[in-house]
Amino acid sequence: MKIALSQLNYFIGDFQGNIDKIKNAIKKARQKNADLIVFAELSITGYPPRDFLEFDDFIQKCNNALKSIAKECVGIAAIVGTPTINPALKGKDLYNSACFLADGKIKQEIHKALLPTYDIFDEYRYFEPSKDFKIINYKHHSIAITICEDLWAVNPDSLYVLNPMDELVKENPDMMINIAASPFSYSQANERKNIFISNTKKYHLPLFYVNHVGAQTELLFDGGSMVVDAKGNVIDELKYFEEDFRIYDFEDIQNFKFKSKAKNENKTEKIPLIHDALIMGIKNYFKKLGFKKAILGLSGGIDSAVTLVLAVKALGKDNVKSILLPSEFSSTHSINDAKDLLKNLDSSYNIININEIYKSYKDTLQALFKNLPFNIAEENLQARIRGVILMALSNKFGYILLNTSNKSEAAVGYGTLYGDMCGGLSVLGDVYKTEVFQLAKYINKDKEIIPYNTIIKPPSAELRPGQKDSDSLPDYEILDKILYQYIELRKGPKELINQGFDEKIVKNVMKLVNTNEYKRYQTPPVLRVSPKAFGMGRRMPIVAKYLA
Amino acid sequence: MKIALSQLNYFIGDFQGNIDKIKNAIKKARQKNADLIVFAELSITGYPPRDFLEFDDFIQKCNNALKSIAKECVGIAAIVGTPTINPALKGKDLYNSACFLADGKIKQEIHKALLPTYDIFDEYRYFEPSKDFKIINYKHHSIAITICEDLWAVNPDSLYVLNPMDELVKENPDMMINIAASPFSYSQANERKNIFISNTKKYHLPLFYVNHVGAQTELLFDGGSMVVDAKGNVIDELKYFEEDFRIYDFEDIQNFKFKSKAKNENKTEKIPLIHDALIMGIKNYFKKLGFKKAILGLSGGIDSAVTLVLAVKALGKDNVKSILLPSEFSSTHSINDAKDLLKNLDSSYNIININEIYKSYKDTLQALFKNLPFNIAEENLQARIRGVILMALSNKFGYILLNTSNKSEAAVGYGTLYGDMCGGLSVLGDVYKTEVFQLAKYINKDKEIIPYNTIIKPPSAELRPGQKDSDSLPDYEILDKILYQYIELRKGPKELINQGFDEKIVKNVMKLVNTNEYKRYQTPPVLRVSPKAFGMGRRMPIVAKYLA
Repeated sequence: MKIALSQLNYFIGDFQGNIDKIKNAIKKARQKNADLIVFAELSITGYPPRDFLEFDDFIQKCNNALKSIAKECVGIAAIVGTPTINPALKGKDLYNSACFLADGKIKQEIHKALLPTYDIFDEYRYFEPSKDFKIINYKHHSIAITICEDLWAVNPDSLYVLNPMDELVKENPDMMINIAASPFSYSQANERKNIFISNTKKYHLPLFYVNHVGAQTELLFDGGSMVVDAKGNVIDELKYFEEDFRIYDFEDIQNFKFKSKAKNENKTEKIPLIHDALIMGIKNYFKKLGFKKAILGLSGGIDSAVTLVLAVKALGKDNVKSILLPSEFSSTHSINDAKDLLKNLDSSYNIININEIYKSYKDTLQALFKNLPFNIAEENLQARIRGVILMALSNKFGYILLNTSNKSEAAVGYGTLYGDMCGGLSVLGDVYKTEVFQLAKYINKDKEIIPYNTIIKPPSAELRPGQKDSDSLPDYEILDKILYQYIELRKGPKELINQGFDEKIVKNVMKLVNTNEYKRYQTPPVLRVSPKAFGMGRRMPIVAKYLA
Repeated sequence: MKIALSQLNYFIGDFQGNIDKIKNAIKKARQKNADLIVFAELSITGYPPRDFLEFDDFIQKCNNALKSIAKECVGIAAIVGTPTINPALKGKDLYNSACFLADGKIKQEIHKALLPTYDIFDEYRYFEPSKDFKIINYKHHSIAITICEDLWAVNPDSLYVLNPMDELVKENPDMMINIAASPFSYSQANERKNIFISNTKKYHLPLFYVNHVGAQTELLFDGGSMVVDAKGNVIDELKYFEEDFRIYDFEDIQNFKFKSKAKNENKTEKIPLIHDALIMGIKNYFKKLGFKKAILGLSGGIDSAVTLVLAVKALGKDNVKSILLPSEFSSTHSINDAKDLLKNLDSSYNIININEIYKSYKDTLQALFKNLPFNIAEENLQARIRGVILMALSNKFGYILLNTSNKSEAAVGYGTLYGDMCGGLSVLGDVYKTEVFQLAKYINKDKEIIPYNTIIKPPSAELRPGQKDSDSLPDYEILDKILYQYIELRKGPKELINQGFDEKIVKNVMKLVNTNEYKRYQTPPVLRVSPKAFGMGRRMPIVAKYLA
């Protein structure tokens, strides 16, 4: 039996577009004599469809789409992911299903049992967990179909009491097929492989796995669909960050005739993965919104420099407009560093000095500000003037503004709401400052694109004379380590102090993270590259007392 | 047996504050010879603690708090809500528990079985559902304790396959106690009563019910704790929007000796409920954040007028600063209407004309804007200048900026991101424009506070000459009906057109709602008064293709 894996970039709610992609892949697979083609979880809707699932109208469209795809399945079978209606009176209205299509019909529906409801996942919000397990018989093969999380209960400390494969294996399947919507983080590809190796070894069955690829706003899907043999060898892995299509002979896999490739063609290191993921994220965001052009404020610092490079790689140098917005506190090196970068990229820019506008605010506010000393109000004012100018250009010319804040700043609130925190999309909001530096070095690996001076100078917001980030924050080397422990690993103050971090710094950083939740609530969606990004995956109260 | 119900306003994460409140209530109940005192669900943490539940440090603090409260329970028993650790290796780490405290000890733990995971609820994100049901025996009584949602499976089309009371009733309890965290919406009090009447009638048992009161950022808890006898009579209902404490003699309730009050002292109509809920929401937001003073932009229109009145009622007239920000497009009546309102409230204000700043932006942008015609860019510019001024005053003087947008505007994106959509808290973001008018009339019920002219004039953003909302939007009477069907009732385009709405208007409104998700993503938290508010309770994709 020949099995095709189709790794596609779906578009949430674009039924016709998704149907066309799926049908084209079915045609291609049939031409190549495949017996079965496998698509990802919720392929008909795109993932995550979120509260669209609560609209009857949306579910009806899913059902129509499935029927239309089934008609294409003549001379070939397909496994397609879609929500289906739970016919029972009690329980949630929907199942998250894998539909087996053959002979032009919907032959069987398999429902997901383990519904991830943590981090960015909300599946129990919509779906009833399946308690009924059955295998599919097709062409003298018996197939155990599971959906994503269903294979993740293999460890003894699983989040779930039940393990679907333990039930399915009782019916003696000869293979596992898993359809998934497993979002990218820099550690996910490894974790995923380990889980699948555990499953294939435990059940002595080969696995065919199909994932989504492409970005859905903040969620990035890296693809990495794969085949693992019954001994736990990863036989083949589909491309990362691109659509892909491959066909396998099941008997070859079953008889261990298919040699694992000596070297995986996909990248495995953290910074290159983040680099590629962010470029895909920008590209898909613009394409799916139907926009072509981005604008950003270029300060001469590292964050906007890296954002610009990634945007140019994603959209092309002619589609990214940089605006330099110097004030009286901007240093000459800032302008020069920004210009050097633009020269290296051959990308266009304008310089807009904000001094006159700043002066007009000060004049207008003079009656109320009186002679109160310069403070955060005036600092934020400058950042907000820049935000207003960038948004005015965005509105006038149809650019989308890219936000250039990094994760360290977002964490401690080192940014101005409605100022430098503006934008349609946050490119680096899940990348710590120390990782931004690593990205810059990776970008420069073949030649100097980001000016050396941008990388080595001390970070500064340049909102008052001689300001440096280190005036108000710990060194990023220390700050980022504390943030990682607190945000990604969810350690408390005691645990961090026991690790040797300074008590005063730890408590101050945690206080900053907690009390700045209100700012993060109002920031653009953040491209998610870590296992714990700000946004839908991290849900903290805004008003709370929880200071270290 | 005497049972005390303690309806308290908790503060998320303020362990010491919550412990003190709970202990004081225990002392008071003991002094009044109560045998048992009942507190709300997750009373130790406040509700919802959200992802703080994922921190071991936080759970340890809950456990310490529970032990400390147990020590107070000598000569009296208490039921207290708190997260507890699930000792099993498999499944989620926590239970949502009602702990029975007596003789200075934690005697028993009852775990929640039905975990609401819809709208604003995320409970399955954190908790393992209980599958084990037991009653509590105390002073010759057997008590069926359930936690909030556990009583909501009484209807045949329940979201849950299981009904905990059906299990508990097998052990012949003589009463039901339900501890809850059931947030306010204008329809919730009625729905809640109906559910409890159904339960008491079905099981022929009286019910003692304790809810939270107070606001946790956007979530408002109205209290309304109650006692229902075994025939389904609501015997008593505690206050709405205030802390309360009452003691009941169980035998009186059991023997139907306690007469239901002839008239409920709580309000029941939608607009008065919304009015009181919003005032509590503003009050609690400021108090829990430790702020006293609010600032807002007062336009002379209905939205900012109603917001100001509510803020003055919540914070006091001396704690609210209004700023009038006229531009060249502002009409004289706007300034006059605003001044009349301020006079009626005896509240302070300043006028800041934005013309000079607007001119300085136009001059600065001239080189790039060239002679392109006036459009949305210039309109938004004015709104953003106002936002920047208000934020500058907020930063300089420590005010929190109140957002004045209504739900109709937020729905269709009729507002400027980083402009009039700024603020720490959205007061009217869950109140449709037609309801804002009703609120204004309710505010004026005894005398004219909001100027008559503000109520009768056609709504306008005044961002270009002669602009009216009706230039670009359907009449609010129609718009709000369509929005209600789409947002609250989740109807699709066909269903609306079948109801008789104009197809073109329906499709345009739905398109506006969908394509403006990106704006709502970056807006302040919205005080939730309806069953479906923007924010955590409505989770839609930002990038998606789903146009009617």
